[in-house]
Amino acid sequence: MPVVGMVGGGQLARMTAAAAVALGVTFRVLSESENESAAIVTHDVSIGSHLSLPDIAAFAKKCDVITFDHEHVPGPILAALAESGVLVRPGSGALQYTQDKLAMRQRLGEFGIPCPKFVPVASLADVEAFTGGRWGNGERVVLKAISGGYDGKGVWVCESAAEVEDVLSHGIRLMAEEFVPFTRELAALVARSPCGQGAAYPVVQTVQVDGICREVIAPAPGLDKDLAVEAEAMALRIAAELGVTGLLAVELFETSRGLLVNELAMRPHNSGHWSIEGADTSQFEQHLRAVLDLPLGSCAQPEGTFTVMVNLLGGDDPDVFDRYIHVMAADPAVKVHFYGKGVRPGRKIGHVTIVGGPHDDLEAVRDRARRAASYLRWGTEDGD
Amino acid sequence: MPVVGMVGGGQLARMTAAAAVALGVTFRVLSESENESAAIVTHDVSIGSHLSLPDIAAFAKKCDVITFDHEHVPGPILAALAESGVLVRPGSGALQYTQDKLAMRQRLGEFGIPCPKFVPVASLADVEAFTGGRWGNGERVVLKAISGGYDGKGVWVCESAAEVEDVLSHGIRLMAEEFVPFTRELAALVARSPCGQGAAYPVVQTVQVDGICREVIAPAPGLDKDLAVEAEAMALRIAAELGVTGLLAVELFETSRGLLVNELAMRPHNSGHWSIEGADTSQFEQHLRAVLDLPLGSCAQPEGTFTVMVNLLGGDDPDVFDRYIHVMAADPAVKVHFYGKGVRPGRKIGHVTIVGGPHDDLEAVRDRARRAASYLRWGTEDGD
Repeated sequence: MPVVGMVGGGQLARMTAAAAVALGVTFRVLSESENESAAIVTHDVSIGSHLSLPDIAAFAKKCDVITFDHEHVPGPILAALAESGVLVRPGSGALQYTQDKLAMRQRLGEFGIPCPKFVPVASLADVEAFTGGRWGNGERVVLKAISGGYDGKGVWVCESAAEVEDVLSHGIRLMAEEFVPFTRELAALVARSPCGQGAAYPVVQTVQVDGICREVIAPAPGLDKDLAVEAEAMALRIAAELGVTGLLAVELFETSRGLLVNELAMRPHNSGHWSIEGADTSQFEQHLRAVLDLPLGSCAQPEGTFTVMVNLLGGDDPDVFDRYIHVMAADPAVKVHFYGKGVRPGRKIGHVTIVGGPHDDLEAVRDRARRAASYLRWGTEDGD
Repeated sequence: MPVVGMVGGGQLARMTAAAAVALGVTFRVLSESENESAAIVTHDVSIGSHLSLPDIAAFAKKCDVITFDHEHVPGPILAALAESGVLVRPGSGALQYTQDKLAMRQRLGEFGIPCPKFVPVASLADVEAFTGGRWGNGERVVLKAISGGYDGKGVWVCESAAEVEDVLSHGIRLMAEEFVPFTRELAALVARSPCGQGAAYPVVQTVQVDGICREVIAPAPGLDKDLAVEAEAMALRIAAELGVTGLLAVELFETSRGLLVNELAMRPHNSGHWSIEGADTSQFEQHLRAVLDLPLGSCAQPEGTFTVMVNLLGGDDPDVFDRYIHVMAADPAVKVHFYGKGVRPGRKIGHVTIVGGPHDDLEAVRDRARRAASYLRWGTEDGD
């Protein structure tokens, strides 16, 4: 069987490891330490840094293809690996657009993908030139770190010159984006294989709080069918234009002027965890199939079903397992996923999923999923 | 998180390992060698023999509870472990009935569970006293090894005195059973937790060839509802009477005189592999929940669905992966499971599963699943 190596030992690698077990594919992980989420469940673990070419090169020697749990391997390392004959999927040509948001915006613009207005900024004057210098009447501007942000980190919504100055004082490369008054957030998840096959999951609604995904509903309730097709087509087009191999998640704003692309991720994505139970092929199996250039699996949801996924964030009490008994007793159909990570307040440590059928009410299922996640976090159903 | 240890490194342990990853439960395997199906994917592997008390005792020290991939750990070892304070689930009191078919038949008879007629035999005279001594007009008698049989091994259907003499010459403890002209074979899978909670999966039809399970249909098509309830109740009753903790699979004959119990297994079972994709809770997660005394999960199938599972047996060509591309291209919804075992003709090396929806035709789905398994085995859709 072929050997797939994943660089990074987080929960995405952990869930990919489980998919590899079923598929019979040999799976290796390159983890920073022996205690990471994927390292504690994977048989073949290498310890090393994703910032070290020698570490990744040594790891790649034991693999037929390498792929990633995150987008933080520096471009020059990716290029050097490819140069030396390693199959790197996705490759540096694609991954650069997840590492440089300015380049991403510029490239998407070149082939006509709608995005929020943006500009690189280095000073308050740059920002005020972009906004027109207005403040104080609810005017807002979004500042983003061009590199390195995730889960709300590296994104600042500023309402005053003072707030802008504060962000500028961090001394990092920044871009300004218009604040988009969106109706809601959506995500389009697609897979693309090296031979060019594409497959699109149903478009989902994501609910974010403070930049962190809290809840995903698949499919996005009440989404206009034309808009859903547009989102899927847009994601497939981006995957093809950027040469993505593996998964591509496109985070979208639904707005009065149509869909706008917010962020891209080239790996299994939080907005796709629902697919483990909710789709014919989980995103983790799909990613393995894509990077192995196997035919892609069906992304369909079983007829008449919908799925709700709620993230489990860390609370004050590390003993999450002690609360399994209550959650499982209250709701025998809730699926609990725990990542084996240390519990810290606000950290993503797991998720819960419920699949609803033709006679289930969406809001009732959302309530059940939220209650389960709240109970696991706080020991009460009424927490946040 | 609690640590569950499974004795035995076969595919059942392998699939339980994947379920443990999702549940966040720490999972250890005691495997005969480093190359077994579960040993090659599990992070925490101990090497040792299931026939050695010191090996299992050392393994158990690293676990909160131990359970089993098979029923071959000798009773005295199980009893000694329990004596020393190890949580053994299921315990020796229950497992003895899978290790001694005569004791199982006698015990089931005591609480009125219908079984084929049986008698222990040591000579041709014993067998002929049981059958009435008739041969040659299609009369058949089943001889079974009282201990140690599985997958058709240890079961002989004899049609002559010479065939009986041949089996007797093996010098093993035997029992004779009436040959039951069944309509079809069914299986009832239930879970029972230490606190006494029970949960029953939908009753399935199994298709056996030469004593090896080839195909499972969930639920059993066209099964009379009363009969289904009877089978589930029978399995729950057996689990309770025998004190099973974990899963209990009851293999049944559907006959003109009703249901008769054929075999028992106290672990995840081939007849339950369909539940990975086809039920709210897979049998592997359910087994973990049961042995951890967690509330049991829903055994339901999503509304309107049915599931077909076809075993993948080894063919002549070991390179099964080379044929993934064709199977996946032909049918994007087929789920391929491969156990990472060496390919030998006739050996169970994996299975395929397809979930059908309200508008799918059962026979069409069976055809698709059989074609996929045949192609993976033989490289052609028309093999056996």
